Amino acid sequence: MTTPYRLHYAPDNASLIIRLALLELEVPFDCALLDRETRAHKSAEYLALNPAGRIPALETPDGVMFETGAILLWLADKHQALFPKSDDPARAHALKWLFYVSNTLHANLNLRFYPDQYTSEAHEALRAGAVKNIKHAFSLLNDVAGEGHAWFNGPEVSILDLYVAATLRWSQIYPSKDYRQITADTWPHLLQIAQRLETRASVTELIKAEGLGQTPFSNPENFYMYQSETA
Amino acid sequence: MTTPYRLHYAPDNASLIIRLALLELEVPFDCALLDRETRAHKSAEYLALNPAGRIPALETPDGVMFETGAILLWLADKHQALFPKSDDPARAHALKWLFYVSNTLHANLNLRFYPDQYTSEAHEALRAGAVKNIKHAFSLLNDVAGEGHAWFNGPEVSILDLYVAATLRWSQIYPSKDYRQITADTWPHLLQIAQRLETRASVTELIKAEGLGQTPFSNPENFYMYQSETA
Repeated sequence: MTTPYRLHYAPDNASLIIRLALLELEVPFDCALLDRETRAHKSAEYLALNPAGRIPALETPDGVMFETGAILLWLADKHQALFPKSDDPARAHALKWLFYVSNTLHANLNLRFYPDQYTSEAHEALRAGAVKNIKHAFSLLNDVAGEGHAWFNGPEVSILDLYVAATLRWSQIYPSKDYRQITADTWPHLLQIAQRLETRASVTELIKAEGLGQTPFSNPENFYMYQSETA
Repeated sequence: MTTPYRLHYAPDNASLIIRLALLELEVPFDCALLDRETRAHKSAEYLALNPAGRIPALETPDGVMFETGAILLWLADKHQALFPKSDDPARAHALKWLFYVSNTLHANLNLRFYPDQYTSEAHEALRAGAVKNIKHAFSLLNDVAGEGHAWFNGPEVSILDLYVAATLRWSQIYPSKDYRQITADTWPHLLQIAQRLETRASVTELIKAEGLGQTPFSNPENFYMYQSETA
């Protein structure tokens, strides 16, 4: 590689969060497109990078990483930006919400989008339960985002801002049959994160690279129904 | 507090992983028992510590932490033990599997134990799907545990060892109706982690504190059916 990082991505997949982090960090990176229509993320070649078969994966000088939360945290630590440093007491709090977003908010988004990965029956009931859990998670996060922390809805962008903005996007537009059953304006502090992010050069670049349309977080449109609705 | 840490716990809940980490780190800590029968973890008092209402929470000099993965990582970094340090290239790999365990393995254990938190219908189908996902996760982790890493099934205990050993325990005995539908000997490298852990003083202390019986990870018995089967 001629750059330190190569991002394996599909448009509007979780890889967009890593793209945003790399853009915010202003580090050079290559991209490798995964074609979800041919299930490239389940190919032997990709499973050698990420045996879990999920997007994204990031090639780094230390080897291949995967897991959105892990990559975000590792990049932030490596470049000493976008997250409280190891000697900052705020790190304890930022860390607990990062894991919460990963294992609860993001996990419930997966349940809603891909119920067939979890059960053979009653997909709509599972989706309804996931929606309830997603709304609860956003409510808790909205409270935290209103508390004036530097690491979430603070004066400088954080990896938590990026991660939550993306989940806010997807929650509003996927699955397409539930288009805007969830809307960002329910949570004013999260809406603020989304809107402030949309003024940044990183998001302009993201929109151009992945075709996400204007206001991709605060008031998004659904351009990628197919890719995002097959596992 | 007279110690730096206070662990809010219930026997055989995820708090046991934090107890093990604290014992391995040999740092003093207090304990505060949460009575699940009275749903103490959903009380206003506890929600002020952890608004997500889940066990564990850990009071620290930097404030209250929650989320098992976050607490483990924060403790390891604070005490510079049980996990690759920030300048170690292995950290990238340990981090990705830590997040995977949190958001996939542990999340699927929750689906299996508490399907009512996710759907009003077809709980057995959801449980069956979760079992499939749990087995897949253990298979991937077994492969990693056989690769000779220092941070997982290595010569010294790691937070990943502790976390995976606990999930191996619960997978074998909960829910009680599926007692030993999953058995640790399916995954020899994970069984090795469990058995080596059981020779340690930390586990002797854990067994005494929480009444988990002999071989709590490699070949456990179910003593806490009630507590673990209500959310």
